[in-house]
Amino acid sequence: MPGLEQRVNTKVVIDYQPIGKRVYANIGQTVLEAAQGLELFEHGISTPCGGKGLCARCLVRLVTGELAPVSPTEKNMLTPERLEQGYRLACQAKIDGPCKIEIPVTSLIGRQQLQVAGCLQAVEVDYGLKRYIISGLVRTSIHYPYSLWQQMEQIFKDRYDLTGLKVGLNLLRSVNPAAVAGELAVTVHDNQIVDVADLDTNYEPLGLAVDLGTTKIAAFLIRLDTGETVAAEGVLNPQIAYGEDLMSRLAFAMESEENARQMISAAADGINELAQRLTASMSVGVEQISQAVIVANTAMHHLLLGLPIKQLAFSPYVPAATLPIETVAEVIGLKLGEQARVYMTPPIGGFVGGDHVAMIQSSRVDEAQGITLGIDIGTNTEVVLAVNERMISSCSCASGPAFEGAHVYQGMRAVNGAISEVRLSNNGEEVNWQTIGGQKPIGLCGSGIIDAIAELNRAGIIAVNGRLDPNHPRVRTEAGKVPEFLLVTREDSGCNSDIVITQKDIGEIQLAKAAIASGISTLLSACGVKVEEIENVIIAGAFGSFLRLESAIAVGMLPNLPLERFAQVGNAAGAGACMSLVSEQERRRAERLATTIKHLDLAVQPEFKREFAKALKFPRVS
Amino acid sequence: MPGLEQRVNTKVVIDYQPIGKRVYANIGQTVLEAAQGLELFEHGISTPCGGKGLCARCLVRLVTGELAPVSPTEKNMLTPERLEQGYRLACQAKIDGPCKIEIPVTSLIGRQQLQVAGCLQAVEVDYGLKRYIISGLVRTSIHYPYSLWQQMEQIFKDRYDLTGLKVGLNLLRSVNPAAVAGELAVTVHDNQIVDVADLDTNYEPLGLAVDLGTTKIAAFLIRLDTGETVAAEGVLNPQIAYGEDLMSRLAFAMESEENARQMISAAADGINELAQRLTASMSVGVEQISQAVIVANTAMHHLLLGLPIKQLAFSPYVPAATLPIETVAEVIGLKLGEQARVYMTPPIGGFVGGDHVAMIQSSRVDEAQGITLGIDIGTNTEVVLAVNERMISSCSCASGPAFEGAHVYQGMRAVNGAISEVRLSNNGEEVNWQTIGGQKPIGLCGSGIIDAIAELNRAGIIAVNGRLDPNHPRVRTEAGKVPEFLLVTREDSGCNSDIVITQKDIGEIQLAKAAIASGISTLLSACGVKVEEIENVIIAGAFGSFLRLESAIAVGMLPNLPLERFAQVGNAAGAGACMSLVSEQERRRAERLATTIKHLDLAVQPEFKREFAKALKFPRVS
Ligand code: FES
Ligand code: FES
Repeated sequence: MPGLEQRVNTKVVIDYQPIGKRVYANIGQTVLEAAQGLELFEHGISTPCGGKGLCARCLVRLVTGELAPVSPTEKNMLTPERLEQGYRLACQAKIDGPCKIEIPVTSLIGRQQLQVAGCLQAVEVDYGLKRYIISGLVRTSIHYPYSLWQQMEQIFKDRYDLTGLKVGLNLLRSVNPAAVAGELAVTVHDNQIVDVADLDTNYEPLGLAVDLGTTKIAAFLIRLDTGETVAAEGVLNPQIAYGEDLMSRLAFAMESEENARQMISAAADGINELAQRLTASMSVGVEQISQAVIVANTAMHHLLLGLPIKQLAFSPYVPAATLPIETVAEVIGLKLGEQARVYMTPPIGGFVGGDHVAMIQSSRVDEAQGITLGIDIGTNTEVVLAVNERMISSCSCASGPAFEGAHVYQGMRAVNGAISEVRLSNNGEEVNWQTIGGQKPIGLCGSGIIDAIAELNRAGIIAVNGRLDPNHPRVRTEAGKVPEFLLVTREDSGCNSDIVITQKDIGEIQLAKAAIASGISTLLSACGVKVEEIENVIIAGAFGSFLRLESAIAVGMLPNLPLERFAQVGNAAGAGACMSLVSEQERRRAERLATTIKHLDLAVQPEFKREFAKALKFPRVS
Repeated sequence: MPGLEQRVNTKVVIDYQPIGKRVYANIGQTVLEAAQGLELFEHGISTPCGGKGLCARCLVRLVTGELAPVSPTEKNMLTPERLEQGYRLACQAKIDGPCKIEIPVTSLIGRQQLQVAGCLQAVEVDYGLKRYIISGLVRTSIHYPYSLWQQMEQIFKDRYDLTGLKVGLNLLRSVNPAAVAGELAVTVHDNQIVDVADLDTNYEPLGLAVDLGTTKIAAFLIRLDTGETVAAEGVLNPQIAYGEDLMSRLAFAMESEENARQMISAAADGINELAQRLTASMSVGVEQISQAVIVANTAMHHLLLGLPIKQLAFSPYVPAATLPIETVAEVIGLKLGEQARVYMTPPIGGFVGGDHVAMIQSSRVDEAQGITLGIDIGTNTEVVLAVNERMISSCSCASGPAFEGAHVYQGMRAVNGAISEVRLSNNGEEVNWQTIGGQKPIGLCGSGIIDAIAELNRAGIIAVNGRLDPNHPRVRTEAGKVPEFLLVTREDSGCNSDIVITQKDIGEIQLAKAAIASGISTLLSACGVKVEEIENVIIAGAFGSFLRLESAIAVGMLPNLPLERFAQVGNAAGAGACMSLVSEQERRRAERLATTIKHLDLAVQPEFKREFAKALKFPRVS
């Protein structure tokens, strides 16, 4: 036991996976409290139950060092096996000395690999909020027959020369106007009183920024007055039930009005769930959200708003409208605050939507020096090319959900137990891997698959056309079954079966990477730019930020350029949504971007098919 | 049969009850078409089914002259008895020669004695609507891959230098953006495209003005661009189910949250029904209503908005807020157009509400020359006194629903068969009466009761304290029953029973008229004004415009002043709502009125009780 003096200044090291961070904490603080000092942006520890020990979602693991003994709550919530392995609840476990704590990816807010860190550019928040301390309020009585609001009207007029102030109906309904006396903190937004409270409570106006993706929906809860992100979460887009890619969803929605209604409400449901979870994690209600900004590709945009989609589903794939849309939340089925306003960043054209505008907006591709390529990797991948701030073009590539682990035999989401890195040695006879969370492998996440295929290619185990070498000792060929490469044996795996990469998996990745690579090359040739002229490559999207660039280049997905020209910026579309949420100027900027960026329809480019066929091949690395 | 020439110029006389009006019509026109020539303002014939012969609400009676034979539709909709009596459907019956047609009050729009004629002052409509003819639109194709809205954006920018135009979500949803070619009429309101249509169709932006009264709700459908009233209707306030006067409603609503909810939705239901009926009568949907203005007394205002009411229900009767309130229709349960906005004119204080502000607004009491008294008679009667445009004060008197026929033994609404006028002769031994519709009497409407009591007073049959002379031959006194005056014998009545005025009826009217008279005298004395100094008396309210002034003076309800100083202006509160609907300036004017008019709480005036006791007496007319 260290002495008292020592204990007071105890240093707790929290080893945050995948990025190491350390923080100083006091004895007796919970691990959760200590972690709040970490500047992790949205990567805080997830606490859906508000830290009450009820949800077990704040799971952490003690690697070394001292925590206070396991509490009864923890015993209740965790299996003996987990306790054995060192798992604890961050909201319950108390620091008792220096220690090293692992936070599994699954315990992080935004555990669906949301990433925005580092890409939210400085934005001037222009939400016009003012706080007044109003004193001299008197209880209503026969001697002073004025309600709180009548007194306020008078006080604002006399003391601040403010007239014509309005009060929101919810506020009028919820405050007893005859019982208030003394001082109040009154918050005024534009011409409207939006909050009254005791002097020691702050009003926190909240907004919701949403990146409505084909596969995932990411949402950020933002303080409108400071721009601060207070929580972030992600869910799978419930529309997946009606089709994986946007074409099949459009087809489903066109079948009948009932189908269209289902599709529309599925998207709203997803956003509502996130709003619910995010506000619950802050112990407030969804009513507190007064503004939302949603960015989405054109199909998701139309399928949320209920716009006509027939002209979008068939060539020439024309959006119903490319105007910015502002509406009231209820009108599109969103359950936020009373009369909460929703703004949707306008699409550019074709399937290139407001999410891409938001990505350009936050990563400032349009203002970059030199020729800049921006790639937002997702189920649909958008590519933008900026040449000297003047010629900006973009296109959309149907890359599909393979990078999310779909259509890959043992593919999985990037959670604990997923293989995220693969190294082959000894001509591919020996396989080394790393998993998220360091556990025994149970499958492959997107970056693991890319890594594995890049290694197979480097080792010459797959041919230029992707075919597995049937003579390699780890390649198994059986009549009536697709050939496969044995990555992990059943004994080494955590799922009681071999982990393999099949010939079909390779085919899926080939299609996906070819869609992106051919989109890039077609866009480059349409703009008369050569690959080597590109000075910056910005990789956006959750998957893109976990991607090993060398591997992505090795499989031919990304252009073969020096690594220092690349930047991985995470969920830049979400960051753009956050910017538009707190700044009218940013909305205007996004609208200007949407109208000035030229949209290139890949389908009508004569060379696109040839480029695609070429891009299916694997490059031979020297 | 008249010759052809004669027939072409046939003159059809429509005898419109209670006011005679004539109109020239052609052979072959329906009675409905002919009646459209009548300048009856809201007193047109009610046609809820749009003149399709489906609702039988357009009932009229052929008194003399020629109509084409009864059609199969009419046979279907009318009983043989009715047909026998000469009843026809105005929308079906065709003119076949000169004739005299009676329109029963029940067939009139606003048949609940709505009256606005003559009181809607000239208002400058400032609804910023513009219509553009947009030509050169092209169907979307592979050769021209732009949607209608994308083309519009470009055209408005190029031809009108208009950018940043928005389009309502409903419009975006309902128009096929790929199929429009050629020319379109585009209507823009402020910065928003609100309608697109063929060149020959006009966009008619509709608004709803509502006078939400304690007993009745009156609503007016108004063209927002011209200010024209296109339809008007009235219903009983469904809140009546929970209490007749506002005090009992407040008490009911305070009992539980469930009660409050019921009360709130009852008011919304009434307004929704009117919106439905009014738009149906114009063959459009409620979605077409984009704006509404509602005026109401403070209690009705709070019970529609769901504001706290406890402080209003008890002395000193303080409104929660006297601010103007603007909200979205859905928020208060109103089913109007998408995101339709609702404005409520602010109350003055106590129970004196926005309806009274609207009455002052439309009758311009505040701008009148000389000392002016305004009286808006209803279940609550508001009185305003303007002295030289500077000192304006108002108060509210609980006059009760007796004038609507409630609490009066044989009282009824002002519909066919109601006695509306009474004359006594031969010391009251002989009674003459007139009924609405000229039918056999079945009861008394409000003005009939006042008339009858005035006559009883004039003939000395009631004492100063209201007591019926037990020795009069028509006064019946029976042990255990209240004394009564026989007005109509069973043989002469249309209801198979005597029609009488009971001692209790006289008491009810005494209370009601005393409430008004003492309100007036208390207000006068508080302002230091003598009765004879009053130069104008404005009588507003539906009941007030059917009232015979001589009788109202004779019973002591109205001040004894020369008749030429009085003006009966009908539903002035509704007219004020119409003004605020089409003019922002008028809203600001109403808001200024609400803050400058002084509210006098009768309950705390020391002389009020004395004045009330005095006013219970009947004046002796010389
Ligand atoms: S158990 Fe829910 S936050 Fe810790
Ligand atoms: S029957 Fe409905 S208007 Fe004539």
